[in-house]
Amino acid sequence: MGEFELIRHYFAAASCAQGGEGVVLGIGDDCALLELPVGEQLAVSTDTLVEGVHFPAACDPLLLGQRSLAVAVSDLAAMGADPIGVTLALTLPRVGADWLRQFADGLNLMAHRCGVSLIGGDTTRGPLSITVTVFGKVPAGQALRRSGARPGDLLCVGGHLGNAAGALPLVLGQRQAPVEVAEPLLAHYWSPMPQLVLGRRLRGLATAALDISDGLLADCGHIAKASGVALEVNAEQVPVSPALEAFLGREAALYAALTGGDDYVLAFTLPEALLSSLPETGVIHVIGRVREGQGVSLRDRQGQDITPTQRGYQHFRETP
Amino acid sequence: MGEFELIRHYFAAASCAQGGEGVVLGIGDDCALLELPVGEQLAVSTDTLVEGVHFPAACDPLLLGQRSLAVAVSDLAAMGADPIGVTLALTLPRVGADWLRQFADGLNLMAHRCGVSLIGGDTTRGPLSITVTVFGKVPAGQALRRSGARPGDLLCVGGHLGNAAGALPLVLGQRQAPVEVAEPLLAHYWSPMPQLVLGRRLRGLATAALDISDGLLADCGHIAKASGVALEVNAEQVPVSPALEAFLGREAALYAALTGGDDYVLAFTLPEALLSSLPETGVIHVIGRVREGQGVSLRDRQGQDITPTQRGYQHFRETP
Repeated sequence: MGEFELIRHYFAAASCAQGGEGVVLGIGDDCALLELPVGEQLAVSTDTLVEGVHFPAACDPLLLGQRSLAVAVSDLAAMGADPIGVTLALTLPRVGADWLRQFADGLNLMAHRCGVSLIGGDTTRGPLSITVTVFGKVPAGQALRRSGARPGDLLCVGGHLGNAAGALPLVLGQRQAPVEVAEPLLAHYWSPMPQLVLGRRLRGLATAALDISDGLLADCGHIAKASGVALEVNAEQVPVSPALEAFLGREAALYAALTGGDDYVLAFTLPEALLSSLPETGVIHVIGRVREGQGVSLRDRQGQDITPTQRGYQHFRETP
Repeated sequence: MGEFELIRHYFAAASCAQGGEGVVLGIGDDCALLELPVGEQLAVSTDTLVEGVHFPAACDPLLLGQRSLAVAVSDLAAMGADPIGVTLALTLPRVGADWLRQFADGLNLMAHRCGVSLIGGDTTRGPLSITVTVFGKVPAGQALRRSGARPGDLLCVGGHLGNAAGALPLVLGQRQAPVEVAEPLLAHYWSPMPQLVLGRRLRGLATAALDISDGLLADCGHIAKASGVALEVNAEQVPVSPALEAFLGREAALYAALTGGDDYVLAFTLPEALLSSLPETGVIHVIGRVREGQGVSLRDRQGQDITPTQRGYQHFRETP
């Protein structure tokens, strides 16, 4: 089976949706072809996951397939974009039919959940690594950028934080937990659900937005820098799941929520007057406020600055 | 220097063109934003190069940067698309300032030559691997697909074939050659120039097109299959460069031209009556004809079938 047949065969379930809206030509030619409705812009993002760095060696390929797509689609949610298509660059040490089938099943499942079609890709031999590039559409001028936060805006997040960081010792087999604790944490790590509906609802309301991948404080730093403002986070308002608190205790759970990566929950700012325009989803938590200045600070109940020095995970910390 | 600063710093020369046509928002947010003129479609392609598989370990990073972009942009040429933007997913074992600077220099140089802007990417730690996703635009309905070849059409290529395959023993240091032989072969391997102008000229004329990456015979097989026709290649018409013939001798040079990969020269079919519509560039060679039937055959001067069994390089030959 050649390179083309290989991709086509295993990823047929995701790519058969290629008659989907916006996809003129899918897998099998030199390029895929997309079209956009008049007045819409194309949103593009690329994410790479490397074995041993972003996921453990010998992990469940179905879960890996789900997660690879979800983390990329989450960037579309963060821009308020509707998914159209995705390309998959898959580097594999060898072709294992079982592995590929399960990986494809996971990817296909998540593609179906997100309403996205596989439109192309490349399969190469080498150390296991997965690069997903996602394409979405958003009405011109309405994309949610990081640069529009204004002093006085509220800072909000779209759900519990820290679950993925809390799950990591379980993923790596370093710790165990009762099933009622382990299950929700592992589900969040392996199958984060991109907040596409929330992103779409935030168009025209949020002044800045992103998805939390490096950790809340680090990502708030990105908004603060891009917008030229300061962000204040109230520690007691940061939402932590009951499972995470049961697993780690209150203090460590909060630390995971503040600095752990891989949450793929949206963080956004918006004028206070617009908060009531958001639907009552139960997932939106106000956690702080935008101020004049720069940087991110963490406050306790008394307003004291308790900012930790560790600001979430970043690849390549060292200065070259 | 963080992940974002790293990319921005070293790839500034390519990304500063982001005010370029079609690029609304470049590097630094969750997604890049592109816009298309009304009536144009977006062409997308992804290519991965892995160290030790697609290029030798410890090769010149400047050359690698050039080549990584060129092979991806070549897919746009093959569709008749005009380049807009590119994302770079770069996986590196460690951050070396010298290596990164040179790689970026090479990529920036090729980006400038191709008129394409770096609009986003991801930098991760792991075994060296480069995934480039390219974006171009093409008037709706005018993209050059593989599926339109019709019996009676001429089969043409856009230049000498086999140079990259001929260069391989030089690239790997297995052989040496006089500079007048080595230079053009190595230039073709490391810095193939995507045939964007030719691709654009073929819109509305060519019935099928692709860029030769797997080898002439293998790639002709892709056109034959997609179009439901047979392709006949006349061996004596296959163009081989003087350097390649001087290096390998006539017979081995022809074999390299027929089966070697990495040429990134366009192959296309068109009705004979349209041949005179093509500009007299000197690079277009008629090498055969489309027939009823299926598959690819190679003919000698007497019309005898001399098709070799080896049909060019394909990743993952074994059936899973």
